[in-house]
Amino acid sequence: MSQLVALSALSRCGSRLALSNAGGAAACRPYSGARRLTGGFYKPFLLGSAALVGATVAGFGLSRSRAVLAAKSVRTPAERDQRELNEILQKCKHFMSDPVTDINKLLENKDDMRTKMELLVMDVQADVCKALAEVDGGQTFKVDRWHRKEGGGGISCVLQDGKVFEKAGVNVSVVFGNLSEEATKQMRSRGKSLKSKDGKLPFCAMGVSSVIHPKNPHIPTIHFNYRYFEIEEADGHKSWWFGGGTDLTPTYLNKDDAIHFHKTLKEACDKHDQSYYPTFKKWCDDYFTIKHRGERRGVGGIFFDDLDSPSAEGLFGFVQSCAKAVVPCYIPIVKKHLHDSYTPEEKAWQQLRRGRYVEFNLVYDRGTKFGLATPGSRIESILMSLPLTARWEYMHDPAKGTKEAEIIEVLKNPKDWVH
Amino acid sequence: MSQLVALSALSRCGSRLALSNAGGAAACRPYSGARRLTGGFYKPFLLGSAALVGATVAGFGLSRSRAVLAAKSVRTPAERDQRELNEILQKCKHFMSDPVTDINKLLENKDDMRTKMELLVMDVQADVCKALAEVDGGQTFKVDRWHRKEGGGGISCVLQDGKVFEKAGVNVSVVFGNLSEEATKQMRSRGKSLKSKDGKLPFCAMGVSSVIHPKNPHIPTIHFNYRYFEIEEADGHKSWWFGGGTDLTPTYLNKDDAIHFHKTLKEACDKHDQSYYPTFKKWCDDYFTIKHRGERRGVGGIFFDDLDSPSAEGLFGFVQSCAKAVVPCYIPIVKKHLHDSYTPEEKAWQQLRRGRYVEFNLVYDRGTKFGLATPGSRIESILMSLPLTARWEYMHDPAKGTKEAEIIEVLKNPKDWVH
Repeated sequence: MSQLVALSALSRCGSRLALSNAGGAAACRPYSGARRLTGGFYKPFLLGSAALVGATVAGFGLSRSRAVLAAKSVRTPAERDQRELNEILQKCKHFMSDPVTDINKLLENKDDMRTKMELLVMDVQADVCKALAEVDGGQTFKVDRWHRKEGGGGISCVLQDGKVFEKAGVNVSVVFGNLSEEATKQMRSRGKSLKSKDGKLPFCAMGVSSVIHPKNPHIPTIHFNYRYFEIEEADGHKSWWFGGGTDLTPTYLNKDDAIHFHKTLKEACDKHDQSYYPTFKKWCDDYFTIKHRGERRGVGGIFFDDLDSPSAEGLFGFVQSCAKAVVPCYIPIVKKHLHDSYTPEEKAWQQLRRGRYVEFNLVYDRGTKFGLATPGSRIESILMSLPLTARWEYMHDPAKGTKEAEIIEVLKNPKDWVH
Repeated sequence: MSQLVALSALSRCGSRLALSNAGGAAACRPYSGARRLTGGFYKPFLLGSAALVGATVAGFGLSRSRAVLAAKSVRTPAERDQRELNEILQKCKHFMSDPVTDINKLLENKDDMRTKMELLVMDVQADVCKALAEVDGGQTFKVDRWHRKEGGGGISCVLQDGKVFEKAGVNVSVVFGNLSEEATKQMRSRGKSLKSKDGKLPFCAMGVSSVIHPKNPHIPTIHFNYRYFEIEEADGHKSWWFGGGTDLTPTYLNKDDAIHFHKTLKEACDKHDQSYYPTFKKWCDDYFTIKHRGERRGVGGIFFDDLDSPSAEGLFGFVQSCAKAVVPCYIPIVKKHLHDSYTPEEKAWQQLRRGRYVEFNLVYDRGTKFGLATPGSRIESILMSLPLTARWEYMHDPAKGTKEAEIIEVLKNPKDWVH
C-alpha cells in the first residue's frame, strides 16, 4: 500500500517537475498541506540522479484528503517516512557543510543509528559554531572538508585568533575501515575482547569533538566530544557503543561558573536517568586526570564511554540531550566574562595551564591517541585541540593563598558543584 | 699483600687524622708523592664515619720509596686501587652536586659498572652545565637534588630565561626498585622477555639527559641522553644494556652546523667501531620521527638502545666518548650564532617548531614515557625537556621556496651529512 502511494505520488509529481533552484536542481512541489515540509529548498547536491529524485520526493504528491489526514497527525507509514526525510533535508541546510556521508545514502538509511548520529553531530557542530562566531564578533570559522583514503572523512571548523577566542575548533568526523593494529591494541587494553578475521576488524566511528580556548584568562576553556562506534567481529556480531562528555577548564576558579556548568549538565542527564549525572561526573574527574601531576585538567563535567545499554535509541536520546546542552552550558559564562580585565601575570598563568592541557591531550586523551594511531587520520583536526600557545616553567609553584593556588587545590581535590 | 699495605697505611694515617675542613670532617693527609692526588680537598660528606675514613684513606700513607715507585708507574694492586679512589674523589669536586649514591658506597664498589656510569653521568652533567653557563653569561644553573622514595634520586640542573638560553636542563638520575607494571609492559613491547618473580622485577637505571632550548632561532636545540640499565630476573640472571644519543633540532637549516655536528659524533663513534656511526645515525633518524607528521624532529645525530655486546667495558668506553663529544658538538655552533639577528616571523616559526618538539616528547619519547610510567619519578625533571613556550597553529603550511619549507624538506627526507 505504502509503495503504491509512493509510486502514484511519484508519477503525479513527475509530471510537475520544475527547475526551481538557481543551481538548476529539480524540486517537486507538492499540491497541498505537505508544502510547509518541502518548500523547494533543496540544495543541488541532494538530487544527484533521476532515480534519487524519485526516492527523495516520493510521497510528496499527497491528495487533498490525505493532506487533511496528515494535518490531523494521522499519517500513513509512507507519510511518516516522508516527513522524516523532509526534516533531514531541512536540517542539512543549517549545517556548516554537507554531511560527510552522501545525503542520499543518509536518506536511504535514515533509520540507521549511523545516520542519526551523523546528523546529530553535524547539527551540534553548526549550533556551537554559530553561537561562538556570534560571541566572537571578529573572526569567522574556516570550514575544511577532508577525506580519508581508507574510508570516510570529516568537517573541521576552526576559528583562530578571534576577538574573544584564541583558538576554537569544532570537528566532525565519520571514519570507517579496518582498525589498525595499534588501535585494536588500545581497544583490547580497554577490556574489549574483539575477534578479528584475518587480523581485520571493520569499524565505523563518528563524532563531534571540540575544544574552545578563549583569550581572556577569566573565560574558561571548554571541551566536548560525543561519539558513536561500531565494530564488526569475525562472527558477524556487531558491537556498538556511545561515548562522550563535556568538561570545563578554567584558568582561575569561579564557583558560580562551575555551578552553572554542572547544573546545566545535570539537567540534561536527569531527563534520562537520575544515576547518570553522579556517575558520569565522577568518571569525568577520574578520566581527565593528569596522572603524573596528580591534578585534574579542570573543574570537570561529565564523561562516559562504552555505553551500550539499555538501548541504542535510549542512549542516542541521552547523547543528544548532552550535546544540545553545550551552548547553554558555556555561552552564558563566556558572555559574563567578555569584558573582564586581566593582568600580564594572569595571562602568564593561563599559559602555564595551557601547558597542562597539552600534557593531558598528548599523553592521556583516548581520542587523540586513537586518532594518532589510526592511519590516514587528519592530524590537523586531531591536534586542533591544542592551544595556540603554551608555556612550561621549571618548578613553578604558586604561593599559598593566591588565586593560582586556589584553582590547583580544586584540581587536586575535585568538588561537588550541585549539592 | 695489598691488604697489609692498606692496614699499615691506615695505622700510620690514623695517628695523623686531623680536622682539616671548616665543616669539621676529618681528612688524612698523606706524607708524600700521593699528595697531589689527595691534597686535603675532601668534602664533609665523603667521610661519614670513622670506619669509612679508614676505607677512604687506606693506602694514602705511602713511604717515600713507594712514592718513587708510583711516580715510575710501577704500582702494586693496592696502589692502583688507591689511585683510582683518589681520582674518583677528585672528580667529585668538579660535579654540580654530590653524586646521587653515597660516595662511600661508590668507593666501595668502584669497579661496578653502576659506579662507573654514575660517575660518568655526573661528570658530563658538570662539563655541559659549565660550558653552557659560560656561554650564557647571564643566568646560572639552579641545582636541585631530589629523592625517590621507591629508591634513588637525581640531580636536576636547570637554567631558565638566560641571555642565550630560554631553557637548558641537564638532569642526572639514578633510580632503582621494582619495575612498575606499565614500565614492564613497555620493556616487553621492545622485545625483552623478562621473567619476573611474584610480578617483581628489580631494576636499576641511571643516566644523564639534557635538552637545551636557546632563545635565538638561529641557534639549534640540542638533546642528549646516555643511560645504563640493569634488570634482575627471577632466576637471578642480570640483564643490562646501554642506550643513548645526541641529536640536533634547528629551527632553520644551516648545513655547516649539521655537518660539524655529525662529523664530531662520527669521530667519537669511529674510535670504537666504524659501523657505529652509520648504524646509529640511521637509528636516530628512525627514532626521532614524529610519525603523525611524517617528519623527523631535527637533523638527527646518533641514537642507540639495548646495546649489550660485545662487552660492558667496551660499550662504556663508547658511551663515554659520545657523552664527552656533546660540548665540542654543540658549543661551537652556539658561539657562531650568538649574535645573529632575527625577525619576529623567525621567532614565530621557532615557536611552531617548539610545538613539534612537545609532540615528539609527549607522544613518542621512550624516556619520557618510561618516566611518566614510573611511580615516584620526578615530573619536573622529566618534563624539563619541554620548551618554555610553544605554539600550535591550525593548518600552518610554509610556502614553497621559503627557509621554513627548506627545513621541512630535510625533516621529511633526512640527509647524509658526512660523505
